[in-house]
Amino acid sequence: MIKQEAFGVEPWGLPETALDLDVLAQSESVFALANGHIGWRGTLDEGEPHGLPGSYLNGFYEARPLPYAEPEYGLPESGQTIINVTNGKLIRLFVDDEPFDVRYGQLRSHQRRLDFRAGVLTRQADWVSRAGAQARISSTRLVSFTQRAVAAIYYEVEPLDGQRRIVVQSELLANEQLPGSDGDPRRAAVLKNVLQSEHTTAQDSTVLAVHKTAVSGLRIGAAMDHLVDAPTSVLVESHAHGNGGMVTASCVLTPGQRLTMTKFVAYGWSGERTVDAISAQVIAGLTGAKQSGWDGLLAEQRAYLDDFWGRADVAIDGDEEVQQAVRFALFHVLQAGARAESRAIPAKGLTGPGYDGHAFWDTETFVLPILTVTAPEAAASALRWRHSTLPTARQRAKQLGFEGAAFPWRTISGAECSGYWPAGLAAFHINADIADAAARYVEMTGDEQFEQHEGMDLLTDTARLWRSLGHHDAPGRFHIDGVTGPDEYSAIADNNVYTNLMAQQNLIAAADAAEKYPDRARELGISPEESADWRDAASAMVIPYDEALGVHSQAEAFTRHQVWDFEHTPADDYPLMLSHPYVDLYRKQVVKQADLVLAMHTRGDAFTAEEKSRNFDYYEALTVRDSSLSACTQSVIATEVGQLDLAFDYLGEAALMDLLDLEHNTRDGVHIASLAGTWIALVSGFGGLRHRAKIVTFRPRLPEGIARLAFNIEVRGRRLQVEVTRSTARYLLAKGDPLEIVHYDKSLKLTAGQQQQRSIAPIPPRQRPQQPAGREPAHRRNGTSAS
Amino acid sequence: MIKQEAFGVEPWGLPETALDLDVLAQSESVFALANGHIGWRGTLDEGEPHGLPGSYLNGFYEARPLPYAEPEYGLPESGQTIINVTNGKLIRLFVDDEPFDVRYGQLRSHQRRLDFRAGVLTRQADWVSRAGAQARISSTRLVSFTQRAVAAIYYEVEPLDGQRRIVVQSELLANEQLPGSDGDPRRAAVLKNVLQSEHTTAQDSTVLAVHKTAVSGLRIGAAMDHLVDAPTSVLVESHAHGNGGMVTASCVLTPGQRLTMTKFVAYGWSGERTVDAISAQVIAGLTGAKQSGWDGLLAEQRAYLDDFWGRADVAIDGDEEVQQAVRFALFHVLQAGARAESRAIPAKGLTGPGYDGHAFWDTETFVLPILTVTAPEAAASALRWRHSTLPTARQRAKQLGFEGAAFPWRTISGAECSGYWPAGLAAFHINADIADAAARYVEMTGDEQFEQHEGMDLLTDTARLWRSLGHHDAPGRFHIDGVTGPDEYSAIADNNVYTNLMAQQNLIAAADAAEKYPDRARELGISPEESADWRDAASAMVIPYDEALGVHSQAEAFTRHQVWDFEHTPADDYPLMLSHPYVDLYRKQVVKQADLVLAMHTRGDAFTAEEKSRNFDYYEALTVRDSSLSACTQSVIATEVGQLDLAFDYLGEAALMDLLDLEHNTRDGVHIASLAGTWIALVSGFGGLRHRAKIVTFRPRLPEGIARLAFNIEVRGRRLQVEVTRSTARYLLAKGDPLEIVHYDKSLKLTAGQQQQRSIAPIPPRQRPQQPAGREPAHRRNGTSAS
Repeated sequence: MIKQEAFGVEPWGLPETALDLDVLAQSESVFALANGHIGWRGTLDEGEPHGLPGSYLNGFYEARPLPYAEPEYGLPESGQTIINVTNGKLIRLFVDDEPFDVRYGQLRSHQRRLDFRAGVLTRQADWVSRAGAQARISSTRLVSFTQRAVAAIYYEVEPLDGQRRIVVQSELLANEQLPGSDGDPRRAAVLKNVLQSEHTTAQDSTVLAVHKTAVSGLRIGAAMDHLVDAPTSVLVESHAHGNGGMVTASCVLTPGQRLTMTKFVAYGWSGERTVDAISAQVIAGLTGAKQSGWDGLLAEQRAYLDDFWGRADVAIDGDEEVQQAVRFALFHVLQAGARAESRAIPAKGLTGPGYDGHAFWDTETFVLPILTVTAPEAAASALRWRHSTLPTARQRAKQLGFEGAAFPWRTISGAECSGYWPAGLAAFHINADIADAAARYVEMTGDEQFEQHEGMDLLTDTARLWRSLGHHDAPGRFHIDGVTGPDEYSAIADNNVYTNLMAQQNLIAAADAAEKYPDRARELGISPEESADWRDAASAMVIPYDEALGVHSQAEAFTRHQVWDFEHTPADDYPLMLSHPYVDLYRKQVVKQADLVLAMHTRGDAFTAEEKSRNFDYYEALTVRDSSLSACTQSVIATEVGQLDLAFDYLGEAALMDLLDLEHNTRDGVHIASLAGTWIALVSGFGGLRHRAKIVTFRPRLPEGIARLAFNIEVRGRRLQVEVTRSTARYLLAKGDPLEIVHYDKSLKLTAGQQQQRSIAPIPPRQRPQQPAGREPAHRRNGTSAS
Repeated sequence: MIKQEAFGVEPWGLPETALDLDVLAQSESVFALANGHIGWRGTLDEGEPHGLPGSYLNGFYEARPLPYAEPEYGLPESGQTIINVTNGKLIRLFVDDEPFDVRYGQLRSHQRRLDFRAGVLTRQADWVSRAGAQARISSTRLVSFTQRAVAAIYYEVEPLDGQRRIVVQSELLANEQLPGSDGDPRRAAVLKNVLQSEHTTAQDSTVLAVHKTAVSGLRIGAAMDHLVDAPTSVLVESHAHGNGGMVTASCVLTPGQRLTMTKFVAYGWSGERTVDAISAQVIAGLTGAKQSGWDGLLAEQRAYLDDFWGRADVAIDGDEEVQQAVRFALFHVLQAGARAESRAIPAKGLTGPGYDGHAFWDTETFVLPILTVTAPEAAASALRWRHSTLPTARQRAKQLGFEGAAFPWRTISGAECSGYWPAGLAAFHINADIADAAARYVEMTGDEQFEQHEGMDLLTDTARLWRSLGHHDAPGRFHIDGVTGPDEYSAIADNNVYTNLMAQQNLIAAADAAEKYPDRARELGISPEESADWRDAASAMVIPYDEALGVHSQAEAFTRHQVWDFEHTPADDYPLMLSHPYVDLYRKQVVKQADLVLAMHTRGDAFTAEEKSRNFDYYEALTVRDSSLSACTQSVIATEVGQLDLAFDYLGEAALMDLLDLEHNTRDGVHIASLAGTWIALVSGFGGLRHRAKIVTFRPRLPEGIARLAFNIEVRGRRLQVEVTRSTARYLLAKGDPLEIVHYDKSLKLTAGQQQQRSIAPIPPRQRPQQPAGREPAHRRNGTSAS
């Protein structure tokens, strides 16, 4: 766990005041810079020591065989794993021949800071070598949001104690030595020498390297160029080798004199283009960056972020930690999705190799709800990526004997990479999650082009999947049997409520789209019989409900199963899947992550307030939160049922997941969906934002710990500003045509520039529900969480 | 598929009249010789060509890693695979320097015959070499039932067309080259050079070789000695090498003169004993064999089998093919179990590497019912092997978080080797199957020593497992959730009827034993509270029944699932698991093998006649028999519900499974349990044998195709002879104290030597139930099966 003291609290940045080598890998994830296309982990400039070096390009992977003890029909034979590409971050320093390495000599001070508005990672170090030479090093690193192929570093060094020979060596390095894997299934497989050299050159201050992966056959180009400046004469030389090359600058400086190096790096990759084309492409990227220059890149970056924060910022009074955390979260969500441009948004973004760099349902269910209302183009781009994988998903459905499309549980390119089907393939809900994200995007943006084409394709093929997965029983009810819901501590169950409700919505949305766009329906071969069949299945959908207990059953028979013996489960046993077999978890009432409770968020219309309240209490007692995708949803529903303190506690957990390394795997990358959950807990939770049938509704309500919450969303091209206090909500349409919204069931017509204020009725305190013994969230009080 | 014509039909042997190289591997399985300790596949004496060479020692395996695409808690990291040990069968022949190889020159005739009464495989070949030399070769091979470490071959060669130099070369050869695996999951992993040489010597006509496996660390010794005889001078030499050695005999013969070689082979293995001890052990085995001499070994073999057939034979009038098949089956069952002596009886016996040489529940459920009443000592020995693995099974239960013992789904040594838990670990019924076999053995033999010790240990630990696997619901009913029954096309279901009924019986048997043996109960820590708890769970056991359909539901919700679309399933899709994913099979009503129908056999007392009839019809329409463990059970219940023609068809399928290679994998070894099923279909089916509470009951009834059925069983030391015709049953107690039996619900007291005859009432014809389209069993008429 990262000690909370490691990071200072400030509203627009994440400062680190000292270097703790024990949590180096975690800090590399937290300080990672990315733009959705390039990802650079926050390693030290000089490369070593490191936790887990990492430079990533979205979609760039190597294939690896998936082994099975007992082969089965339909399991993928080959998986995909994100790989550490050519490292362009390296700037090594030698002071009088001694390498700058924080492990040797004396590190007098060391500060880093991630700046959410500037979009840069800065670093300052005062170091004394073992020979006694003192130097001050500072660097600023950015991965450009505006030039997606480009990253850059401004590096500065000054001797503090006398005349010193300063040598700065910038490298471009493929096939870095990686630390070994410790066997954690969530850790990406370590691949050695995965990049085969095709072409490297060094000329003046430029180095270019093109490599190719052996099995996936993807080609990557990386190039760097440098501006070196010093008040004395500087010798600059460059060298190339099979893994890349280096540019070395040497000079002699006295205190007050500084050597500065601006390093421009460009990346490109392709599965098709030649060595020549890739080389030209990265040289072009480099030229663009040099034309902007360092100051230009900085300015573009800030302008891009000013625009983003103007649209997306969430402001909080009363909890500085959460204030910082939600901006940290938004910054990382933006970094993951900003320029993905027809590539996936992986679960860890481009901040680490966790989950092999795969994208899951997280994207559609947790990340896209934010991007849809804060950066709609990024949301559209992510959905276009899914759409581009439709042929693969159709083929997969066919292979499995189903109609329509079966999207992969985890993937980089669109091919299924899950090797354990009960918690992969059987989690068919991902298909409805994708349909839901597409429909939500259309509702919130009004993008009819997308709706008619990508949207309708996605809705149709997923509806066809559901129709073929489910069946009518003798009395005509529609069942979807043998599936796994979001809760991975149950599997292969009949009529999972979340799945069935999401499938129901999916089927209706597809039928509605076919009605709205008859020409496209004909094109897609949707007959009136077929869409009637969809509506029929949707209306006859079985939703298990336990009459005796008066709660919904997460799936058929779930509430009849034995309750897990939480009382006798030691704290060390969590997460349970690492100390108990699935055969035991599956048979019992124990919930890894919100499932029925998530259904009450995504399909809140399907439950009465009374049902929500009873269900929430029931599932609280069973939910252990062994997944990072739970606290935010529990926070949202806790708010809705009037459990504001509890909601605030869950907000704290979601918000601090990575900053406090609550799941002990932030080293492999930050949890993009859980970070997104911070926004969800605030905006959908305390802000009470929902949308249905194009109407945006609010039921805002703040917990004790938050005095004021302000956020913006974009709805069909209009910017809506919402400001909530404990007693009132103010709505302002910043621009655009009038917009109808709903505040606590009352309709409200907003016209641009005219703020409207509504009161929020207080609610009576309710008894706090029980969580499993030892799994209560840390109490959040006075701006900190403590158990 | 082996062409039926390949084998001739005769009552006491299996003759092959010509050599078909296309089915060589299948014939090697069918002609395999074994005694439960040593197994020799029926390869040609000269070793090549071969389908799948194989020499096995029961329990001798190598460990191999079990890989997973996604690691999980509780999955075994290492598996076990039976290995091809030192080959002692090889006798190569050279005629005027030309090697005898059936692929070259001209094979004028070639006959082989497996003799069920002599217990030998004989072979005669007339061969013309490419150089025109003619020779007649004959050999007789046996694996001794009486000297379990010994096998022997009598080999004879004679030139037919003039003076020829005859060289006969006998080999002992470890690490034979094996053909590659074709990726069928059921095929054993091919392990290369698995035996590491520790010691080999050759002296006079004796060769000795000791090897060790690298990972499992098991040591094997093999030795051979020879008697060579010829009317002219013979030079005999021997050589040793790392993989073994050879003895070469050379002479010049003219037509009418024969060289004979008697080859004695002895094997021994141990995980503990030294090279010296193992060497001495196999030399001792060899000396014993030589003392008996070839004629002595033949005589012992015949005497052993005379005794066996006297106890076990099943005689049939009216169907010569089935007559042959049931004796073939009994012979292989005996070969698998005769001298296993505290080792497992693997699913393929010692006839091939199929299923990695693992033992499953087959042994207890299908093989032991025969051995218990025909070779009780072999049954006791198999149960003692299970008992010897109790410590491992207790440890496994503990690792998984359960009480008592969890026996492995598949194993050689007792450690779990299954790498797919939904159809392995979750098939907990194996624990009740073991308890059932132990209880049946005690009932049928009256072996109180076993009952008090091994029996009670097994019952207690399995009862404890069931108690911890299941739980009471609010109204007090006892559920066992999330398990897999015998039908592997369903998994992780609640309250599987077969499992629950078997567990119920297991719990009661354990409580009864604790009551009967209070001292042992104290020793095992069984308090009165605990055994009351077992009885309570048993009496409250949930047995799902579908009121609307009026049938039992194989497991909770099964009958509500969608019925598999048999109509549109092409014939090539079978077996379905090779062309459809489990995610689809599990969600639908499609039955791989008898499950509910098996429950009606093993727990017939739990169903009314009406229920049996309705259930049988219902499950017939769903059962595709993609397992070899189905037809025999369907035959038994078909008989019980009066579907005699159908029962006869299923008998044909069970009986001819390996002789006709119906599942296309006889090459990997014969299906011991399916062979045992032939006996079950005849004796429990048409003979109507059941036993309950120590009473043996009969409801005999013959189909059109069988005029007379006669069989013997041993009950508590007495031999009971039963002879059934269409209208009457005759019972004769051959010896021993009087015995009470039941014929069609009427009690009958038998005294030794006095035959009693009872009539069998005719039954009205019933409408034949439907099977899934294309999965009807072949109609058996006039002694053949044809589809």
